[in-house]
Amino acid sequence: MNFNGLSEKNAVYFEDCISKINTAIDNYRDSLYAQCGKQKNVAEAMYYSLSAGGKRIRPVLTMEFCRICGGNDALSAALAVEMIHTFSLIHDDLPCMDDDDFRRGKPSCHRAFGETTALLAGDALENAAFNIIVNLEYSDKVKCSLIKELSYETGVLGMIGGQVIDTEYSGQMDEALLLDMYRMKTGALLKAACKMGCICAYAGLEKLLAADTYAENLGLAFQIIDDILDIEGSSEELGKPSGSDAANGKVTYASLNGISKSREYAQILTDNALAALNAFDDTDFLREFTMYLLDRNK
Amino acid sequence: MNFNGLSEKNAVYFEDCISKINTAIDNYRDSLYAQCGKQKNVAEAMYYSLSAGGKRIRPVLTMEFCRICGGNDALSAALAVEMIHTFSLIHDDLPCMDDDDFRRGKPSCHRAFGETTALLAGDALENAAFNIIVNLEYSDKVKCSLIKELSYETGVLGMIGGQVIDTEYSGQMDEALLLDMYRMKTGALLKAACKMGCICAYAGLEKLLAADTYAENLGLAFQIIDDILDIEGSSEELGKPSGSDAANGKVTYASLNGISKSREYAQILTDNALAALNAFDDTDFLREFTMYLLDRNK
Repeated sequence: MNFNGLSEKNAVYFEDCISKINTAIDNYRDSLYAQCGKQKNVAEAMYYSLSAGGKRIRPVLTMEFCRICGGNDALSAALAVEMIHTFSLIHDDLPCMDDDDFRRGKPSCHRAFGETTALLAGDALENAAFNIIVNLEYSDKVKCSLIKELSYETGVLGMIGGQVIDTEYSGQMDEALLLDMYRMKTGALLKAACKMGCICAYAGLEKLLAADTYAENLGLAFQIIDDILDIEGSSEELGKPSGSDAANGKVTYASLNGISKSREYAQILTDNALAALNAFDDTDFLREFTMYLLDRNK
Repeated sequence: MNFNGLSEKNAVYFEDCISKINTAIDNYRDSLYAQCGKQKNVAEAMYYSLSAGGKRIRPVLTMEFCRICGGNDALSAALAVEMIHTFSLIHDDLPCMDDDDFRRGKPSCHRAFGETTALLAGDALENAAFNIIVNLEYSDKVKCSLIKELSYETGVLGMIGGQVIDTEYSGQMDEALLLDMYRMKTGALLKAACKMGCICAYAGLEKLLAADTYAENLGLAFQIIDDILDIEGSSEELGKPSGSDAANGKVTYASLNGISKSREYAQILTDNALAALNAFDDTDFLREFTMYLLDRNK
């Protein structure tokens, strides 16, 4: 992969994290396939979408927040976060949602497996995330904290709530509602990812709050930079048509406020995210990773 | 309601259970609505389907198994089970699944709220079930046991796996696969319902195993009686066209084995279910309730 802006050392480290996550996904597949009978097709659809790649931003954040809080293993919690993310992508791509035929350059789950199987694969991944956590070797207290965090940020008051607002109010949002939608649709699962890493390391409240602040600012900055790129980026760089938000009549932060104010706000959010990391030690990778996520042209 | 076959005393008790569940659903709605902003529409869709009625068989089983194990409150766990059941019904009714316009005499969720909202309402209910459990007052150990049970029986190896087999192999099943499908699609959530009641009362392994046996036999008997009624019942009694399985080319236990052998097997399963209740005291209601569920003409 090409990790623009990461130092050689951090790029190697990032690649190692991704590789651990991919191995965890493959191990999950092996265990699931071994237990499946005639329902194996849905397990294949789950694996197809789970393994479709992407930068594994959320699980990397889970693992890294665990590490900087002094913990040594959040891989399964990271996998649970990626399962929720993948479930949301599968359902997002369905004809009754965004109706996308492609995802990360491959046919979307329902194009590859049919709508029925894709719907059920999403349902099964949402469930599997909780099943994986509850079967971990952690104490019951940690497992309950993880499930509380993940279920809250996934639900009506988090990610799913954001999807509802996005589909129902697209094109008619004011700035306050738009930012709420960004916080829920993108920020909520990022929060869960970061905080679950802290929980796996038994971190205290101060670090949990700092992780929360980091994730909220990262999520907003990421979305606003997306908005700017959709106006300014070339289609070639984006890998999708630029100007698609305007063409779809979508209100974005950049369409409401213009490029210059958007850049300014993205910078403030980025600064806030980096400042939140002051609550932790050993944040060299995470600071560079944050800039890698936010200082991009696609 | 009309509870054919229940004694006056047990009918009153059953009605009281249903009323408690309905109140728990209304309280959940009030709490959710109070926290919702612009995503309230999906919360309304969740409540619409949760409150659509039905006999509340699963949550009543959760509450009753808790009671006969000496526990005194499984109402929230029962609500979680009903949420999983309702999520599965909402997604089952979607056009890419069974494409049903009506559910319990009312427009199905996607007919009332649109496909997008129905999809997300199902997703949100699946998630809410785990969120409700993890926020209970029980010990972390009990909460983890409840989530382990519910997530296992809901997932690829349980209810969702059964839905996959039903949609992919309908019409081409042999008896073994058909019974597996019944065990997963119907039996798994009944198992979760009964065993979660036991867990809420801190019951030991012997009672959990007996609840498991009871639920497995109840689930199979229920399905096979459905198959018989679809052939023998009048459309008027069933509230839906009889003969619909045959018309849809569906393999059922009765179509494979004939009415007489089906009746015989349903009787064995019913006897097994009732025998499993010998592990518990104070089962008068549960025995009558079992007969009420199985000795029916609709």
